[in-house]
Amino acid sequence: MKIKVGIVGVSGYTGLELVKILINHPIFDLHTLCATESCSDITLLHPSLKNTLSMPILEARIEQIAKECELVFLALPHQKAMEYVKALSVKNIKIVDLSADYRLSAEKYEESYCPHLDKENLKNAVYGLPEYNRNLIKNTNLVANPGCYPTASLLAILPFISHLDSSQTLYIDAKSGVSGAGKKLTQTSHFVTINENLFAYSPITHRHCPEISEQIKKIGKIDFKTLFVPHLIPITRGMLVSIYAKLKEEIDPLEILQQHYKDEFFVRISKNCVQIKNVAGTHFCDIYAKNDGKDLFINSSIDNLLRGASSQAVANANLMFDLDEKLGLPQIAYIP
Amino acid sequence: MKIKVGIVGVSGYTGLELVKILINHPIFDLHTLCATESCSDITLLHPSLKNTLSMPILEARIEQIAKECELVFLALPHQKAMEYVKALSVKNIKIVDLSADYRLSAEKYEESYCPHLDKENLKNAVYGLPEYNRNLIKNTNLVANPGCYPTASLLAILPFISHLDSSQTLYIDAKSGVSGAGKKLTQTSHFVTINENLFAYSPITHRHCPEISEQIKKIGKIDFKTLFVPHLIPITRGMLVSIYAKLKEEIDPLEILQQHYKDEFFVRISKNCVQIKNVAGTHFCDIYAKNDGKDLFINSSIDNLLRGASSQAVANANLMFDLDEKLGLPQIAYIP
Amino acid sequence: MKIKVGIVGVSGYTGLELVKILINHPIFDLHTLCATESCSDITLLHPSLKNTLSMPILEARIEQIAKECELVFLALPHQKAMEYVKALSVKNIKIVDLSADYRLSAEKYEESYCPHLDKENLKNAVYGLPEYNRNLIKNTNLVANPGCYPTASLLAILPFISHLDSSQTLYIDAKSGVSGAGKKLTQTSHFVTINENLFAYSPITHRHCPEISEQIKKIGKIDFKTLFVPHLIPITRGMLVSIYAKLKEEIDPLEILQQHYKDEFFVRISKNCVQIKNVAGTHFCDIYAKNDGKDLFINSSIDNLLRGASSQAVANANLMFDLDEKLGLPQIAYIP
Amino acid sequence: MKIKVGIVGVSGYTGLELVKILINHPIFDLHTLCATESCSDITLLHPSLKNTLSMPILEARIEQIAKECELVFLALPHQKAMEYVKALSVKNIKIVDLSADYRLSAEKYEESYCPHLDKENLKNAVYGLPEYNRNLIKNTNLVANPGCYPTASLLAILPFISHLDSSQTLYIDAKSGVSGAGKKLTQTSHFVTINENLFAYSPITHRHCPEISEQIKKIGKIDFKTLFVPHLIPITRGMLVSIYAKLKEEIDPLEILQQHYKDEFFVRISKNCVQIKNVAGTHFCDIYAKNDGKDLFINSSIDNLLRGASSQAVANANLMFDLDEKLGLPQIAYIP
Repeated sequence: MKIKVGIVGVSGYTGLELVKILINHPIFDLHTLCATESCSDITLLHPSLKNTLSMPILEARIEQIAKECELVFLALPHQKAMEYVKALSVKNIKIVDLSADYRLSAEKYEESYCPHLDKENLKNAVYGLPEYNRNLIKNTNLVANPGCYPTASLLAILPFISHLDSSQTLYIDAKSGVSGAGKKLTQTSHFVTINENLFAYSPITHRHCPEISEQIKKIGKIDFKTLFVPHLIPITRGMLVSIYAKLKEEIDPLEILQQHYKDEFFVRISKNCVQIKNVAGTHFCDIYAKNDGKDLFINSSIDNLLRGASSQAVANANLMFDLDEKLGLPQIAYIP
Repeated sequence: MKIKVGIVGVSGYTGLELVKILINHPIFDLHTLCATESCSDITLLHPSLKNTLSMPILEARIEQIAKECELVFLALPHQKAMEYVKALSVKNIKIVDLSADYRLSAEKYEESYCPHLDKENLKNAVYGLPEYNRNLIKNTNLVANPGCYPTASLLAILPFISHLDSSQTLYIDAKSGVSGAGKKLTQTSHFVTINENLFAYSPITHRHCPEISEQIKKIGKIDFKTLFVPHLIPITRGMLVSIYAKLKEEIDPLEILQQHYKDEFFVRISKNCVQIKNVAGTHFCDIYAKNDGKDLFINSSIDNLLRGASSQAVANANLMFDLDEKLGLPQIAYIP
Repeated sequence: MKIKVGIVGVSGYTGLELVKILINHPIFDLHTLCATESCSDITLLHPSLKNTLSMPILEARIEQIAKECELVFLALPHQKAMEYVKALSVKNIKIVDLSADYRLSAEKYEESYCPHLDKENLKNAVYGLPEYNRNLIKNTNLVANPGCYPTASLLAILPFISHLDSSQTLYIDAKSGVSGAGKKLTQTSHFVTINENLFAYSPITHRHCPEISEQIKKIGKIDFKTLFVPHLIPITRGMLVSIYAKLKEEIDPLEILQQHYKDEFFVRISKNCVQIKNVAGTHFCDIYAKNDGKDLFINSSIDNLLRGASSQAVANANLMFDLDEKLGLPQIAYIP
Repeated sequence: MKIKVGIVGVSGYTGLELVKILINHPIFDLHTLCATESCSDITLLHPSLKNTLSMPILEARIEQIAKECELVFLALPHQKAMEYVKALSVKNIKIVDLSADYRLSAEKYEESYCPHLDKENLKNAVYGLPEYNRNLIKNTNLVANPGCYPTASLLAILPFISHLDSSQTLYIDAKSGVSGAGKKLTQTSHFVTINENLFAYSPITHRHCPEISEQIKKIGKIDFKTLFVPHLIPITRGMLVSIYAKLKEEIDPLEILQQHYKDEFFVRISKNCVQIKNVAGTHFCDIYAKNDGKDLFINSSIDNLLRGASSQAVANANLMFDLDEKLGLPQIAYIP
């Protein structure tokens, strides 16, 4: 069995990661690659693929994609993605949207992003965090692929949610490599700005904060105030999240993590602080936790472009087609 | 007027930084440089100084230092430093100790480090944070130069101390460049380990945590529980601290910072998140703060080798000799 | 068919890369992993492998390896490797030695390294550069896996060898990431030494220079004087080589490269300067060349740990067992 | 005595470096700062200067600069600079132009850049390499400040010029930090492009090649063919140049360097390969050389923004005003 796959937005980092994963996927078959700037061969845009993949990049034509593909990944900026979802959803094809367009409630979305023009689909979209929404994902045609910060944060927080004092704020101090900001040129992405530097940005107001809060409430069934501060670090790939929370009473946090994730292949509980190097290049999320009385420190790490975007999108697609969730997902870290 | 200065421990990073500052100091005169491995000229050890400084590095002989120097900087490992202080303190010379040996109460010191063999001097040592202990520093012969993490943390927290809910934990998420770990070779300091990586270490148990707590109590007069998690980042120099605290009631944090430090030249209040690049190479501490209701985020940055070690040592020495505190302190950042 | 494989020296970078490649190899089956420090599971040493591979690391016992394995990779320091080869070669097993011990003539080896204690096998060892020695490799039991610098240099130079003026020196200016120097701790491998730095080392006298010269003579049948200067660059992985040579007469160098390597899957001719990012993570060697009259600039890039060590070792092993040379070799770059 | 100084183009890296040097210059007095985008205070553009310098940035008005300043530094793109020189040169003020506009003969300039619109001044401009043109610089009103690559290359080559075989090509393999490419945003300056990467660019055709050739001929009085290949390395600051040349007969290259530069404070002869870290932050040029028979390897390093731009500009200005050449020039490296 082969399933024909389209990717819209193949020029960016997450588009490239999707291609790299799907080249070796046993079932999903790269059929249509689209980007704003078309070209006769993907290696003109991504020369690293030379000798490994030769396919044109087409202008995105919704009609053609709908006709030829059974599965579409949208690796587009927010707002742009909902146009495609709206048009594609009337056809019977499965969509994994890597943008923010279907991750939030309409209300929170419009506070953080822009007016939402596809509220119909928004209602039915499933938040694609496999460890928590596996069954919902299996039964939907539209997955909202989680943000990178929310993925690392939710996988770390949710195991403890019933042990936490919900009257207290969750403090999330997150650190991301620069690829998380995408390929576009800004003074912030200039090598000289980032190299030998470190800084927080959008403290408290970052748009991934409502995504985290809403999902804690939706999945964990409890309302928490969440204070989120992301930082940019001078590395290309990977993300580390340090969370500070208040326990209702003392627990053994490693024991809880191990129990909670004992059946999850792609979540690894670490006995020491986690390191980006151990997950970069993979779909794994590594988690460590330690308490000091009722104060809890939780520490997680993922590859922001894979578990925080493209490999999670493929995991979701695997589930949507009732395949083994692990199919094609990268397990071997780039280390050293 | 020239004051003869000795540095013991000139082979490490902070020793080199002391030399670099004192080369251009108008009053302090480099007279004796010592290190475990002596050599005929400092440029054999630090070739970057060629044509700028030519002096031998001697084996450290306490008698000789005591006879010839009026001021001694100890850039030694903890435990080693107290030997020198003990021997030198009976002579009438002023000492700035960059190690941890005189920063803590005897009790906390022995919990975190090793038995203390000079409790007599420990009682009288002054914690060298100029913005808070200026008068004490002016009147002592022994300054315990603060740790890098405590410097960045205390300068950020102390302005808010009376506004904070002391029943709540202070969460300090600190990130330091690799030079903070010194020159010694460990698997952790290997380029391949650090590059493209990020990780926390010694979470909750790091020895700078009791230093921060004790000084909050001593200077701020209030007891706080402090949870401290340091992280190692792939840069050479500089440190960023992100602090999460609970306010008793809502305030305007930038207004408070500006008032509090309005007469302090070397603390700069920023209207945006601080960046390591703006302080690396200088004695400045940049601070920013923002609240979300009663949740407070404080963000400070220093050069770990300068404000977190060597330039703070020189500031303290300036005060001990009743000189202008600013004499010789670096103000021009390495940026870009 | 499964072939039982042993790796001796699994704790270093090239040992880890061998493991990472062989986990997914369809024929070679990881059977015995050895290192000086044994441990109950490889994930204790390489935590990134958790959930992916679980095997003990044994002390290397030659008898046991010889009895149980059909293929052995030696990822050991030079001098150590020849002990194993000597002992293992009497058994009928195939060996790929990643050290320098069988790369050079005895004479050159002893000039550059140390006395050679296994000259018998040295005579019969095949230099494992598949593009040039494919048939020899297929028919040997002992492959000397080429050094990283020689691999990148020879693949770049050999296509032009008949066009070059052999009375002129070949100048090779090579730049390598830090992983090339291995895991051991030296002041040179300290993060603070390398970061924001760049320097040449062992200019003219580096031990890879005679390896390059000898192979040019052996494979290219012409004697060239070669001047080799390696540089250390602040990246983890990858190598770039810039070669300056004199042509006998003007040629079209890209045309020559394309012709020469038209049947070689793992050598890619680039129309622009090559970039480490396009090959890091893969077995590819990218080459570009440009002339200015009779002056020729050749520019090649490889992943020093893969094409310069472990994936080349696997390519050689594939050939030794008459398998498809491409089996298991990594093609997808880590980029971005 | 104070001399009023204007800087045109204060927003870029070299403009900032000029400001940082001149803040502490004992004679030159920052009087007028200009940039395309004016602002009420330089700290809005360069926040690292807060508390150290407070001055507005004005729109560049030639009339006003000419009236108020005795010395003007032009830190502008090529082509833009010549407009200013043309207009300012009729007034009696001294100009140091950091652009390429007055470095080359008209013929070579127009081949490499664009039509030259101020050939009158071009004829009289002095190439500002103090070690070789000190007297000319003292007697001119217009200095063409050398390019970074030519500075490092010429200081390395010129001592050997009479010993080299001029029938042979000089091969210059240069490596520069990213700040050399300036502040503008391009895909090449994106952090993710550069980090963990390395590549040559503009091989053979780079515009600094004719600058090097012309000056070798002008200063060294001999014509050489020069083949120049620059590489971009993932560091912010600093440059390393490796040169391969053919000697007429064997010499002791270190002896020649030492003799040649024995009276030059800012050129340091090293007994080992040079390192960027030893010069970054300073006006020093470090040089090492080693021969293998008649093959000569020369190795030099400078800070591209200082000795390769702004500190050299100040050295030239010192000479133009008959001041001590060393005034204000940075000597203390940023190391570690």
